[in-house]
Amino acid sequence: MSELFELSPSDLQSILVFTSSLARSAGELILEGSQAIRSTGNVDEKKNSVDLVTEYDVKVEELVKKELGGKYPTFKFIGEESYAAGSRPPLTDEPTFCVDPIDGTTNFVHGFPHACISLGLIYSMKPVLGVIYNPFLDQLYTGVKGQGAYLTQGTRGPVKLPLAVPRPLPSLSQALIGIEWGSDRSHSAIESKGDSFKRLAGNPKEGVTGGRMAHSLRSLGSAALNFAMVAQGGMDVYWEIGCWPWDICAGSIIAQEAGCFVAGSHSAPLDNLVTEEVLAGRKHLVIRAIGDTPTEKGIDAQKRLIKEFYETVENIDPA
Amino acid sequence: MSELFELSPSDLQSILVFTSSLARSAGELILEGSQAIRSTGNVDEKKNSVDLVTEYDVKVEELVKKELGGKYPTFKFIGEESYAAGSRPPLTDEPTFCVDPIDGTTNFVHGFPHACISLGLIYSMKPVLGVIYNPFLDQLYTGVKGQGAYLTQGTRGPVKLPLAVPRPLPSLSQALIGIEWGSDRSHSAIESKGDSFKRLAGNPKEGVTGGRMAHSLRSLGSAALNFAMVAQGGMDVYWEIGCWPWDICAGSIIAQEAGCFVAGSHSAPLDNLVTEEVLAGRKHLVIRAIGDTPTEKGIDAQKRLIKEFYETVENIDPA
Repeated sequence: MSELFELSPSDLQSILVFTSSLARSAGELILEGSQAIRSTGNVDEKKNSVDLVTEYDVKVEELVKKELGGKYPTFKFIGEESYAAGSRPPLTDEPTFCVDPIDGTTNFVHGFPHACISLGLIYSMKPVLGVIYNPFLDQLYTGVKGQGAYLTQGTRGPVKLPLAVPRPLPSLSQALIGIEWGSDRSHSAIESKGDSFKRLAGNPKEGVTGGRMAHSLRSLGSAALNFAMVAQGGMDVYWEIGCWPWDICAGSIIAQEAGCFVAGSHSAPLDNLVTEEVLAGRKHLVIRAIGDTPTEKGIDAQKRLIKEFYETVENIDPA
Repeated sequence: MSELFELSPSDLQSILVFTSSLARSAGELILEGSQAIRSTGNVDEKKNSVDLVTEYDVKVEELVKKELGGKYPTFKFIGEESYAAGSRPPLTDEPTFCVDPIDGTTNFVHGFPHACISLGLIYSMKPVLGVIYNPFLDQLYTGVKGQGAYLTQGTRGPVKLPLAVPRPLPSLSQALIGIEWGSDRSHSAIESKGDSFKRLAGNPKEGVTGGRMAHSLRSLGSAALNFAMVAQGGMDVYWEIGCWPWDICAGSIIAQEAGCFVAGSHSAPLDNLVTEEVLAGRKHLVIRAIGDTPTEKGIDAQKRLIKEFYETVENIDPA
């Protein structure tokens, strides 16, 4: 761990202050963009709508990149928009910001108030700082390696995550589970996902083979905010196919600092390390902090439930 | 319409002020209850958890019933808890409060911040006033017959709904759709719902027969807040099986006042009248305000899309 603290804890605190303020500025731009798109009359003229989303995605990324570059000129930068445009620096040990300017773009377009900026910092190849800001609900989630995770909502002061003392979680039948329909709508993707969701929700005693009878399933439409929700303890598990590093970089450190376990694909080692392989792996599962019981440690319950989950759902490849 | 105004517009305004304040008090109790449940250590010892939910459901309903009874002693009262306990007065022309003390109880138990009190007033057999308060996000939704619908969030003043000028909506392929997995987890319910969801999301050009390729599907877990979200314009459509009158009474008038169209079952007349049959009908669809185009009035688009929706999903009966 020692190499981590060439960025000392107080360095990270100072980066947190700067990036939190920057996320709030980006949030204003996101709100402005969402309102602009919804006031153009027709979100449905696809070209215009897509152009407008891209315009604001680029605008927010440029703001963030410029401000970060001015303050931390030696840090590298990975952003959704610049990555898409072909700038793909390999991950190194050096400090690297990893940013999704607008996570939850469908929500952003529709004014469904669950979209955010997701701003992570990778150091020694792992997320060490994360800031997620949802301007629609004025919610700021932060996490710093070794320093905990917090939610600041509206005018209330920061509250440590998770919001309640971690309870045990005997099985998926007691879980509230975050799932997403995603953007791959091909026959095979829809069948595999839909059938997986049916098994998570279905009652095995009433004829659903392999059913887990989870408390219920929720879909918010933002990977970053789903990670934050698990960190907060409001969802027990979140499963996703197809995320990119910028979707989960900030969320994964916030989640880990809140006691969550972050896993990669079905076959990834269960070590709660968000390695480059996990970051870029396109398959993710995160489970909330779980309290110990007399017969099982929380960490063992997390691993057991991740296995149970992956035995329940299909191993789906992203498009 | 004249009989409506034995409760005059100013009577309704005064009831709105009282019930909004009451909803906020109820909200404090809901927050307290959610925290109490999550700090008992084990939400999963089912008996305790269910007992605690019922305890707070009853507590909130008793508070609301007592306050409403003190202020409006001649008004009737329908509440989830008293209804469940066997008190089922028939609906009459008289003013009748219709209250779900905690809508979204699964969310309430898990601390997923989308639970609320839903407080409606029925007069002449139709909803005329609705108040929905989500204490987790400090969001108050209100609607009064003929006087519009509003959202008051945090310290911001009330904002008229919908939040943006209503856009056209050419087809379900441009829609963000609210769906819920619900509590009926039998094989037939899960198959019918799951297959309906697959068709809403699936791409017909990539092999999903009958697919509508909606922008996406969302699940928040509270019927009242889903109605409010459609009223706000954040979701385009919300479809539900199994609601009771208190789940949708407040939401339906808030939605209608925001320009939404509220429909009952597949076979119900498309007249946007929330009659007793619709209120008690257990099958509901609500679609947001839609802007006129040169070739189609918004109201015609609403009816067309409701038909399109009901052609897409299965006609499922509640358990």
